[in-house]
Formats: sequence, structure tokens, C-alpha cells
Amino acid sequence: MLRLQALAGRARTRAPTSIKPPGIAARPSATPSSLRNVRYASDKASNGSRRAPQVLTSGARPTLAGRSRVPNFFSNRITTDSTAKKPPKIPASLRIVYKAAAWIGIFTFVSGALVVGFFIFDATTYKEGPFLEDIEVSELALNPRRGGPKNLPIAEHLVDDDDSEEKKESKHKPKLVILGTGWGSIALLKGLNPDDYHITIVSPSNYFLFTPMLPSATVGTLELRSLVEPVRRIVAGKNGHFIKGRAQDVEFSEKLVEISGTGPDGKEHSFYLPYDKLVIGVGSVTNPHGVKGLEHCHFLKDITDARLIRNSVIRNLETAVLPTTSDEERRRLLSFVICGGGPTGVEFAAELYDMLNEDLTCFFPKILRSEISVHVIQSRGHILNTYDEALSRYAETRFAKDQVDVLTNSRVKEVQSDKILFTQKDDDGNLSTKELPMGFCLWSTGIGQTEFCNKLAKKLDGQHNKHALETDAHLRLVGAPLGDVYCIGDCSTIQNNVSEHIVTFLRTLAWEKGKSPEDMQISFSDWRQVAKRVKARFPQAADHLRRLDRLFEEYDKDRSGTLDFGELHELLRQIDSKLTSLPATAQRAHQQGQYLARKFNSIARAAPGMALNQVDYGDLDEAVYRAFEYKHLGSLAYIGNAAIFDINGLNFSGGLLAVYLWRSIYFAQSVSLRTRILLAMDWSKRALFGRDLMNF
Amino acid sequence: MLRLQALAGRARTRAPTSIKPPGIAARPSATPSSLRNVRYASDKASNGSRRAPQVLTSGARPTLAGRSRVPNFFSNRITTDSTAKKPPKIPASLRIVYKAAAWIGIFTFVSGALVVGFFIFDATTYKEGPFLEDIEVSELALNPRRGGPKNLPIAEHLVDDDDSEEKKESKHKPKLVILGTGWGSIALLKGLNPDDYHITIVSPSNYFLFTPMLPSATVGTLELRSLVEPVRRIVAGKNGHFIKGRAQDVEFSEKLVEISGTGPDGKEHSFYLPYDKLVIGVGSVTNPHGVKGLEHCHFLKDITDARLIRNSVIRNLETAVLPTTSDEERRRLLSFVICGGGPTGVEFAAELYDMLNEDLTCFFPKILRSEISVHVIQSRGHILNTYDEALSRYAETRFAKDQVDVLTNSRVKEVQSDKILFTQKDDDGNLSTKELPMGFCLWSTGIGQTEFCNKLAKKLDGQHNKHALETDAHLRLVGAPLGDVYCIGDCSTIQNNVSEHIVTFLRTLAWEKGKSPEDMQISFSDWRQVAKRVKARFPQAADHLRRLDRLFEEYDKDRSGTLDFGELHELLRQIDSKLTSLPATAQRAHQQGQYLARKFNSIARAAPGMALNQVDYGDLDEAVYRAFEYKHLGSLAYIGNAAIFDINGLNFSGGLLAVYLWRSIYFAQSVSLRTRILLAMDWSKRALFGRDLMNF
Repeated sequence: MLRLQALAGRARTRAPTSIKPPGIAARPSATPSSLRNVRYASDKASNGSRRAPQVLTSGARPTLAGRSRVPNFFSNRITTDSTAKKPPKIPASLRIVYKAAAWIGIFTFVSGALVVGFFIFDATTYKEGPFLEDIEVSELALNPRRGGPKNLPIAEHLVDDDDSEEKKESKHKPKLVILGTGWGSIALLKGLNPDDYHITIVSPSNYFLFTPMLPSATVGTLELRSLVEPVRRIVAGKNGHFIKGRAQDVEFSEKLVEISGTGPDGKEHSFYLPYDKLVIGVGSVTNPHGVKGLEHCHFLKDITDARLIRNSVIRNLETAVLPTTSDEERRRLLSFVICGGGPTGVEFAAELYDMLNEDLTCFFPKILRSEISVHVIQSRGHILNTYDEALSRYAETRFAKDQVDVLTNSRVKEVQSDKILFTQKDDDGNLSTKELPMGFCLWSTGIGQTEFCNKLAKKLDGQHNKHALETDAHLRLVGAPLGDVYCIGDCSTIQNNVSEHIVTFLRTLAWEKGKSPEDMQISFSDWRQVAKRVKARFPQAADHLRRLDRLFEEYDKDRSGTLDFGELHELLRQIDSKLTSLPATAQRAHQQGQYLARKFNSIARAAPGMALNQVDYGDLDEAVYRAFEYKHLGSLAYIGNAAIFDINGLNFSGGLLAVYLWRSIYFAQSVSLRTRILLAMDWSKRALFGRDLMNF
Repeated sequence: MLRLQALAGRARTRAPTSIKPPGIAARPSATPSSLRNVRYASDKASNGSRRAPQVLTSGARPTLAGRSRVPNFFSNRITTDSTAKKPPKIPASLRIVYKAAAWIGIFTFVSGALVVGFFIFDATTYKEGPFLEDIEVSELALNPRRGGPKNLPIAEHLVDDDDSEEKKESKHKPKLVILGTGWGSIALLKGLNPDDYHITIVSPSNYFLFTPMLPSATVGTLELRSLVEPVRRIVAGKNGHFIKGRAQDVEFSEKLVEISGTGPDGKEHSFYLPYDKLVIGVGSVTNPHGVKGLEHCHFLKDITDARLIRNSVIRNLETAVLPTTSDEERRRLLSFVICGGGPTGVEFAAELYDMLNEDLTCFFPKILRSEISVHVIQSRGHILNTYDEALSRYAETRFAKDQVDVLTNSRVKEVQSDKILFTQKDDDGNLSTKELPMGFCLWSTGIGQTEFCNKLAKKLDGQHNKHALETDAHLRLVGAPLGDVYCIGDCSTIQNNVSEHIVTFLRTLAWEKGKSPEDMQISFSDWRQVAKRVKARFPQAADHLRRLDRLFEEYDKDRSGTLDFGELHELLRQIDSKLTSLPATAQRAHQQGQYLARKFNSIARAAPGMALNQVDYGDLDEAVYRAFEYKHLGSLAYIGNAAIFDINGLNFSGGLLAVYLWRSIYFAQSVSLRTRILLAMDWSKRALFGRDLMNF
């Protein structure tokens, strides 16, 4: 490009350059690249004759080139000095044609240069020659010693501990083991400083899945690989290690986590992985809600599920076309039922509807389109019931228009291979049992606890929740040694025991002062101190502690100007009851992961000083970092060429522009440049070629 | 863009426009779009004051904008008339900076315009509202009558026969049924005129697979979906029909083909599809060569195979890293064995090597790379033995450099779950039995006949080949009623019975003339007539009939000047023996498909006239079209950052440039714009992000 500019510059200061006549100028050959062939007939501007340069573009006849003396595209009406003759005028329309040709040329040239540049880059990405490098591997990594309660191999050293200088350095750092590769674990991993810990991430899947867009992958709006990012790629940036295995148990006293991996013989082999800090982010499983026949259903939790759904949908369509398929069977095959009206179910219904509406009729017999039905079975009164009511009504209206059948107040009783039995409550509260023939069923009705978490909950004191592992506000697993084990994401919940915590605190205070707590009288300034403590310890409670004076008045039932112990207890219990558990969303897990990363970084910085001051290791969390506080950033959902948003209490919904906004938000949140480029490619692909209706 | 130019033009003829100082000008904000904000302070050029226009670009301080009076980017040294003062000179370096900023701006603007354009296009691709259309479906399509030898439903009408005007018109055209969606069938389909036949294509897979690049998909150099094109998309352009089913049998006398499809209950249901013309292009299966234990092997014929291989390779790598895997097991897991040194095997070995060399070491422990071994077991003396010897030696040298172990003259005896037993012949011809531990085995040793073809071959007279269905030179299936059934691609072979055909012909001729054939004397001019007939009937024999005089002399052993019947017979037999059967390649199938398409188009054009002249339907082929002639266009193979070419006898090989050529050839041959764009995306993706090492 510089060469081009230099030439153009010369032309400007010396002589009017020639242009070709319109017929030629308008052709794409009049590109800047052709300028490189311009030879200046007179090399000095001062010779006075100022002959036009000859344009030697191949294809342009030289005789034409010198005919008219008009400015070139880049410098109109140029004179070298005041004595110059005015060049002949050319019509404006012609000038526009020249200009346009020049712009096209510039664009072609720049694009061409980019392509050539890319090829040169590409050529540097191929490696030649075999791998010839000495590798250090410690003997203990190759033959780990056995130990622990079950006498299993203990993986104290890993085979890649000496692979690089950075890894060698982190070898003797505290061992941080992260279980799971979901939103929480990956946010934690990405936020950690690379050199503070010896990081090992353990998961049965070696990729991070961008779950919010999973429904789009079920019908081919997006490709499977655009939603996943290899964990090893993320881990490599942190000098960490990855082990493809499944956590089975934790020996808290010996700081060992039991992992099982599929061995060369296809069987599961277990070993212990030692940790100094363990983060549990293993996620959840589908909640069967005790319904029979879920083996006839698809689920939508993993990328493989999306592939199976895609194949299954196309298979149903293909089967429905066969001459041996009767009309009744065809209608059953084309009855798509979604159990669960949450975001996953609704977005799947929307994507399915999109595919059926946009792509199906182009390539499949039209009879299919007329016999297809999509049903959403929802146990509550509205779909998307966690959203603002206006939004869920908008979604329902939209679905009604799209002929997506929404069955509210309905509870699935049983799934059979060809139909679904459910009970529906009518407006008067009467239950009636109905059945729906179905060819495809998606089960997305919420989450349940994994076996691993269940096992841990039974092992530990203080774990009372049946659905998730309880942590304190610092995300430390309740019952495990303080500061050793953390729990984030769907598998965890934060204990909201404000009253219990404060009452214990006050009792201690009272006893220290030699008083009986029942005799204590709490003044308004005492109350402010207590509230401050509550806010620091339970950030989620802050919303309910805004008007301290009103609360004080309200609960000071005897109007004594002070609260007695019973009154305070009652106040705190009320706050407890108002605190709901955090939603099981990507957003929460992500924030928890980020929180832990920041805290772990702080701890690593503070630890040496703390050790000198003999501060106990387990107490570091509270000493160096605040408690976890969830900030709800909003919810959004795609509902079929429309989208709804619930962002900081601002609710809005809309058509295509909202869809582009919905995409932009997820595009920005996507995990890597790789996935972003792939997403953009997929969306373009859909626009250009539609969804490809194949199954394999 | 036009608006921009107009403004630039105004600036040029009126007043020197201001530019921002270098610090701002060099920033991307100095783009053409900012020019749209230029406000001319004095609107008339004649007022003499010629104030500089204010550039109101956000971010640029207005005070700076008016400070210096220098030309704008597009028009340097502009004067409105000869009395104008010369503007102050600016240094060349600064000018280049301005220029560069302007070019960047132009490029940004044009790219931006393209993106906006794309979004506008994208917005038009979403369909709103439900499907409300009346659909005609004939009663016979919904409830087909039963019949045929097995009393199965006969699909005389299909559910989409009335879906469009074009389809309604083709309803009463001759029924052309194509079995298979491989190279031959798709080339045939793409070449057919849309209105001549009622086209139905039947295959168990609803996509066309671009087989030559399949090895690239096994390790993630290309994505699976980039290699496949939905058949329904191709069929739609021909107003054709697609049925996802498997051909089971053909009732030649009743012109019915028996198809089975997977019904709603998951079981196979059979029906008959009537045809007027049937084209069999069902391909081949893997040839087990009688070796035991192939259940431990992977194959590479279908897109699903590529997915399974990819998963299996990554799984082996992940398992090899587990602390429970011993050193010996690790080495076995990382021993990749390829049985068969043909193009598929060699290209897979090359792709595997690429992945291990380029991507593995970045993300997996280095110990893997040092313990990996790739072995190719080849029964012949060289790999790629169908190529020129120089090329196969080049490939062997390349593999030797890359530490890919090539075991020639070796025959696999048995595959076990963890090792392969094979016999190797040394240079002295001594056999020795060896074993090779393996963690992954690919079996790609040639092709065998499908069960369906086997069944047909047994049913028909004149079928002697055990590996493929025999056709005449017009690709008509031997033994089936003339002009009804054709056979193309890997499942077919052309009978090279030159002598038999000619001898029969001569016998008939002799009898007609009342002579005994044994007494015939064939003069040189007779021989030229015979040779002409042979060339027309068996185009493949033309190469062996170049020097007719020499052949005549050679076989005229009694120097009589004429050939007697015996001598001629011997000559023709020699030619027969020299004719090899055509290679089972995509190229051959593609040419056969194209040939049939052109012939069928001719037949459709000629048929009405022929019928008037009472020409028998079966003889139409020879009347309207020449026999099939295979033109070998060359072979190419990828061998790991290098490629070899054997094009029309011109052999060459090379590194990266050859690889780009190899890609270009396949890029050009790719089936649709969609696959081409996807291929380009995949190659870019590999360059930018490498292969993604995930399994799901």
C-alpha cells in the first residue's frame, strides 16, 4: 500500500496523470494495482513538455491511454504552479464512474493484500520435522506411590510437571484442584494468577460448554463446536494441568480427592489427587421429579445431547415422509413435546419452530409442515415464570401466534414411548388427566444433585439441603476444614443463617460481659452495629436492611426505645425468610468463579505475611477478602425471531433488533476469540444457506 | 460512499480543508465517516476569507481543528484559481501518515458498509408467522396400494408430488429412480434436466459426502459438516424427491425396487418403488480380506467414521495422561496402526502426524509426543502403489523423515484388542510373523461388494465378477432388460469382452453371407472397419488400437496379407487382457454420473421421435449416445505438509505450495458454494486456532 501511495504522491506533484477512457476505466482492471505499472514517460516535471504517463495495464490499449489529459482519480484539478493550463473539463457523471472504479479497485487491492497476508501467516503455522526434545519426567509421576484410606495411587506428581520452566516453578506451590469445567470453574481458572498455585482441573469433559446458546445447536442454527472451547487451551495459559476424570469422593482429613478415569481397558480406575485447596464445581444433573419413562426423553445439558436431539428431529422428519408411514403415525412423529417452560425449554421450542418454519418447507414435503405440532408443558401458570410477568405474557402471545401450544398448570405423570400422560388443573382448580401423542420429548424441568455431591453432603456436618452443597458466605463448604474446600455453581447453595450467626455472636458478647443474653437491651446504635456486621457477612441481606430506623421501630413492640433479645431474634428471622437462594444460572456460577479467583489471588499474596504473624491458614479468607455478593445482571431469552430482556428491572422485548441484541450480549460473553469467530461464521452461514438438515 | 465522494469533491474545488494535527490524524478516528461531519463555515468560496471548515469529529478538539491550514487527505495542494496563495508545505512523512489514516478509514468504511449490508440481508432471511397453505396430497400417496411379488405397498405417488407446479408437471414423466447419494448419483442428479423425468433418489444417508477429504476430518483439520451437503438441497433444484431408505432388492420384470426404511417403531419397513429407469450407485463396503478381529478396527468410509476416529484418538491421548496408566500401556495406547497403504491410509497417517506434531505438544504433556508412534502396514512393496514409483518413493522418504513407520510387504493376519499380528516378507522372500502393540487401528485395505449388489448379481445372467456388478459399455446392467437398469460407481465394473462381442458380430456377418466364419479372410480394410467398431463400442480399448498396421502385421503370422478368424480372435483376446478394470475412485463415479445425465437428457429429447418411428425403447441408448469413456484426470495425495500429483502422466511433488494446490483442486471440485465457504473457514480456523482437541 505504501508503494501505491508513493506513486500516487509523485503523480500529484509532477504531472497530471492519464486516465483510461470510460469503457476501460469502469472495468475492474482499473485498480490501484494497475497503478504499479504506470511508467512516467518524462521523469522530470521541469522539462515543460509534461507528457502523460503511459498506462501499461494489460488489456488497455496504449494508444488510448495517452489520448486525453485529465486528472487521475486521486488528484483532481492539480496544478504544479500558477502558469499551468487548466485541464479540459469532464462531466460529473464520468467522474463518479472513475471514482467508483477507483474505490472498487482500492477495496479489491486491500482485500487481496489481506488474503495474501493471511496465506503468508498460514504458511508459518505448519511445523516441519519430527519432535526431538529431551523430556524430564519425575519417577513418582510415572510410578505414583499408593496410600490413603483405599490404598490407591496418589498422584503427587504429574507427567507434565517438568514440561516448561513455568510449570517447574509452580510444582512446589500450594495445590489447587478444581473439579468441573463449567461456568464457575472456568471463570475461576481464567481469573487466577498463573504462578500462585499448582493448578489441576479435573472433569469428565475436556471442554467448556457455553450453555446459554445450547438450544441453538439442537437444530443447527449454531454448530456444536462453536459452543465449546477446549479446556486444555485455557489451562495452558495458566501453566495448569488437566485430568479427564470424574470425582468420586473426598477424604477431607487427608486432603485427597478420589478421581476415576477410564483406563486403557475401558474400565474405571481410581486414584487420589492431593489438594491444598479444593474447589467443587461439578454442576448438577437433570431432575427426574420422580416421573416414570424418562428413557424416552431427550435432555439438554451437554453438547452430546444437542447432537442427539438434532439427529432425532431430522430422523423423525425423514421417517414421516416414508410411504410406509401412516397419516396417524406421521402426526405422532411430528408432535414435539417440551416438558418444562423455563428458559431452556422455551428457547428450544423457539429454535425448533424457527427451523420448521424457515428451512423445512424448502426441502421437505409440505405435508410435514401442516402436520407438525410443538407443545410446551409447564407446571406453573406461565412459561418463563422467573421473568417479569409482562415478559412471560409477551412470550406466550408470541408462541400463540406461532402456533406453539403452551399447556400451563400441567404436570407430567408418565412418559411412554409414543405418548405423554399429564394432569392439567383448570381455572377452578379441577384436575384432569390428559394424554398427548408424541414423537419427540425434551425433558428440561430443573436440576438435581449429582451422586458425588450427595455423598459429600452425607459425610459432612451442617449439610441440611437436599438439593445442593451448603457453603458459608465465603463459599467455603460447610462442615469441611475451614479454607480447604470451596463449592461454586449449580452444585452449591449459600446458607442464609443470618439470625443463627448473629445470635451466637451476641450470646458470646453477653457472656463475655458477664450478662445473660436474655437480659440484654439493644439500643439503636447497637442495632446499627449489628446491621453492619450482617451486611458484611451476608451481602445478600443488604437489600432488606436499608431502613434501619423503620425496622427498629417495627420490631420494638413494647416501644421501649430498645430491642430485647427476643425482638432482635424475630427481626433477624424475618430477614432470613426473605432471603431466597441464588438462581442456578451461568451468571451466578461465573460470578462465584470470579470471586474465588480474586480471593485466591489475594490469599496467595497475603499468605507469606500471614504465616509470619502466625495467622491460622483457615481464617485467611475472612482476613483478606469480603464475602461473596451476587449481582443480578439480568435475564434474557430467545423466543423465536424475538427476544425478551429483564435487565436491572428494565424489561423489554422485541423482534429482530432484540434478537441481534440478544446475540450481541452472548457474543460478548463468549469464552474466547475462537468461539466468537465461530459464532459469527455460524450466523452468517444460517443467513446464506439456512440450516443443513442432515443427520449423522 | 457516493455521499462521501461528493463531499470530498466539494472540498477540493472550494477551499483547503483542515486536517487534524498528526496525533489525531493518525488515529483511526480520522476515517471518511468523520468527513460527513464537516461543516463549511463559509458556504461560498468567493467570500475570500476561506475559513477552514470545522471538523466536528467526536474526540477531536475543535480548537485544534482550525489551527493549521493544510490540504485534506484527498486533495493536496489545491488552488481554486491562479491568484491563490500557496498553502504551507507539509513534510512527506506526515503526508504518508495522513494517507495511511485515510486508507485505513476507507477500508473500515467499506468493510462497515458490507457488514451493514449483510445484516440487512440477514434480516430478510427470517420468516414470520405460521404456515397457512392448502396442501394437495393424492390419496394414493397417503394409502398406497399393495402388490408385487411380496405384496408390499407400492409407492406410485409420493406425498410431495403435488407440492409445486413443477412437481405436478413431472408427475407423469418417466420415473427415474437413483439408488445412492455418492459421487456418481450426485453427478447424475446435478446433470439432469429438471423436467424430463420424475426423479426419486433413495439412500440411507441424506447427504453427499466429499470423500477425498475425509481423512482431514478425522483429526479436526476440517469439520464434518464442511464435507457434506444435504441431498435434499440438491434434489430440490431438480424438482426431485428423496427417500431415506436402503435398497433391498429389484424385481426386474415388474420394474419395482424394494426399499426398506426405519419406521416410527424403529423397525425396518419395506415397500416397492416403481421405476422406468433405475440407476444403481450404492457404492461398496469395506473389504475384510478374511481377517479376524476387525471389530477392534476403525473404518473410514462415512462421516460418522470420521467422528468416531476423532473421538477415539483424543480419548487415547487423554487416557495416556492419567496417573493410573503405566508406561507400557501408554506406549501401546499411543501406537496408531493403519492397515493399508493406499491413498486413504496414507492421508490419514499424514493428517494424524500433522495433528500430533502441530497441536498436541501445545496442550498435552510432552511425554505423549515422545511416546507416540504411527505405523502403516502395506501388503505391497510400496505405499501408494497405484501412483508413479517416483511419487510413492517421495512419500516414503517424507514418512521416514516424519518418523512414520512404513511396513511394506506385510500382511495382517489378525487384529486383537491390544495388538496386531502380521507376516512380513523380507528381501529374500522369507516370511516372518510379527506383532505390534496398538491402541488404535484403521482398516482401509480396499473395497468389497454390498449385500444388495451380491443379491442382484446372483439373480442375473451374465454376471461373473465377484466384486462388482458388470455393465456393458453403455453402463447398462448386464442381464437386466436393456435400457432399464444402469449401474455406476464403485459397485459397478464395465465388461471388457471385446473379443466375444466382435466374434459374435463377425459370426453373424459370416452366416448372413452364407459363409462359415472359420473360412473368413479379413483384409486390412476389413480390419480397419472392425477396429473402428471396437473403438466405438469399447472406448477404453482405443489406446491399444493406435497402430493398426503394426497389429495387423504382428498377428498375420502366415504373412498371407489377410487375418484368418483364429488370428483375429487371438488379436482381440490380447487387447482384452490389456484392458484393466477402471479404478474405484470418486473420479470414475463422477464421470459415469455425468455421462448418464447427458445420455438421459438426450434420450428424453429423442424419445418422442423414436416412439413415432417405433424404435424399441431399450435400444435408445446406442441410437442416441456414444459409449462411456473414462478419462483419467490424475491422482493426488496429501502426505503431511506436502502433496504429490500424478496428472496426465506429469508427476510432481512438493511442500507447502503443493499443499495449497492440492487444496485448490478439491476446493474447486467441491459440491456447492456452501461447502466451499465452509472449507475456507475451516482452513482459516486451523491457521488461527489450531485443531480443537475435544471429544464428544
